[in-house]
Amino acid sequence: MERPFDEELKGLKAKILEMAAYAEESIAFAVRCLKERDEGLVVEVMRREESINHLEIEIDEMCMRLLALRQPMAADLRFITSAMKISGDLERIGDQAVNIIERTIELLRHPQLKPLIDIPRMADLAQNMVRDSISAFINRDDRLALEVCERDDQVDQLNEQVFRELLTYMMQDAATITRAVDLILVGRHLERIADHATNIGEDVIYMVKGKTIKHHIEANRSLDTGLPEKP
Amino acid sequence: MERPFDEELKGLKAKILEMAAYAEESIAFAVRCLKERDEGLVVEVMRREESINHLEIEIDEMCMRLLALRQPMAADLRFITSAMKISGDLERIGDQAVNIIERTIELLRHPQLKPLIDIPRMADLAQNMVRDSISAFINRDDRLALEVCERDDQVDQLNEQVFRELLTYMMQDAATITRAVDLILVGRHLERIADHATNIGEDVIYMVKGKTIKHHIEANRSLDTGLPEKP
Repeated sequence: MERPFDEELKGLKAKILEMAAYAEESIAFAVRCLKERDEGLVVEVMRREESINHLEIEIDEMCMRLLALRQPMAADLRFITSAMKISGDLERIGDQAVNIIERTIELLRHPQLKPLIDIPRMADLAQNMVRDSISAFINRDDRLALEVCERDDQVDQLNEQVFRELLTYMMQDAATITRAVDLILVGRHLERIADHATNIGEDVIYMVKGKTIKHHIEANRSLDTGLPEKP
Repeated sequence: MERPFDEELKGLKAKILEMAAYAEESIAFAVRCLKERDEGLVVEVMRREESINHLEIEIDEMCMRLLALRQPMAADLRFITSAMKISGDLERIGDQAVNIIERTIELLRHPQLKPLIDIPRMADLAQNMVRDSISAFINRDDRLALEVCERDDQVDQLNEQVFRELLTYMMQDAATITRAVDLILVGRHLERIADHATNIGEDVIYMVKGKTIKHHIEANRSLDTGLPEKP
């Protein structure tokens, strides 16, 4: 038999799915706007950011109500606190899409620097990470969540590649500098989106397993950055 | 009479204060390392990041235990969920300090581009925002929290200024490009730190007043970005 509580948790899942759909669309529209130089898409991103912001508040209120009235234990409690964190990450993903649109508005004032290939690839990867991290949350699938976390490196590598390529443009021709810097920042924003999807993946693993993998991944990752070893 | 619960909440406050102290120190050390070209400070930032990561997990576990065992209502519930969110922001502030150190390591390989003035000023502002946002949390001071949120614009303006100045360097001399880009990224990381402090401020206002100001501030802010008006 279903508890009324299960109904409420279903409602919460539905809201997270709605928010995630907006976040994914924002990334897609922002990068399509940049790639196809279609200024009409700016408004699509701005509209979605507004919906995302409303949903964050709504989800927060739902979670607080569930915590206060249902006083959930164990798995349910972890589900609700994870939902709060995940909605925070989705909201920041929406912000990053707006940041991309801001850079794009700048970029559309000038001729295209180069045909974009790696940035749209990064966007696809990041968008898929968001989708899969949310699907891992909904289905309590810690394997998929871990897989999402592992994909973060691909986005970082592509971003590094984009960065290096744009540096060479700038060095060869000072007229490309502002555009190249804007594209470097777009790359950074996409990298941040992948980081947020990774955060969501980590939260899902914690939710399912009741223990955290946070910072283990980071620790492994920091070995590759050429940083001095930690004491 | 004090409830045992009050003792536990005090313990939680103490952990947040400890985490915030590390986060502030990380910012200070990272920017001092950059300004004074003192490579010995790299290890100070890395050490603090490790402590911050441990504290995040510890605080999360404390909060989950309090939610499960004490089943808090109203103000206590909001305090605990705020603590969870705030520790997430502090952890990201620690990450941003590490990002600054990564750029700094690159920068220290080359001669100094220019004496740094605005970046250390941004760092001071951002660090004070972190300190005051946490003090607002500890003292449930929504006025101070709002004041922190309002200071975010100063950091954004300084960052814009740093960005424009560095662009002119790059245009005049291609040999400055990699260093200028690294400094632009340092500026961005400081701006992100100020954003996290703003998030903390918003969480404190929600905690004290039971209603959110989130996205109102953002909506006002977006009017200044030259973006098209929202539909």
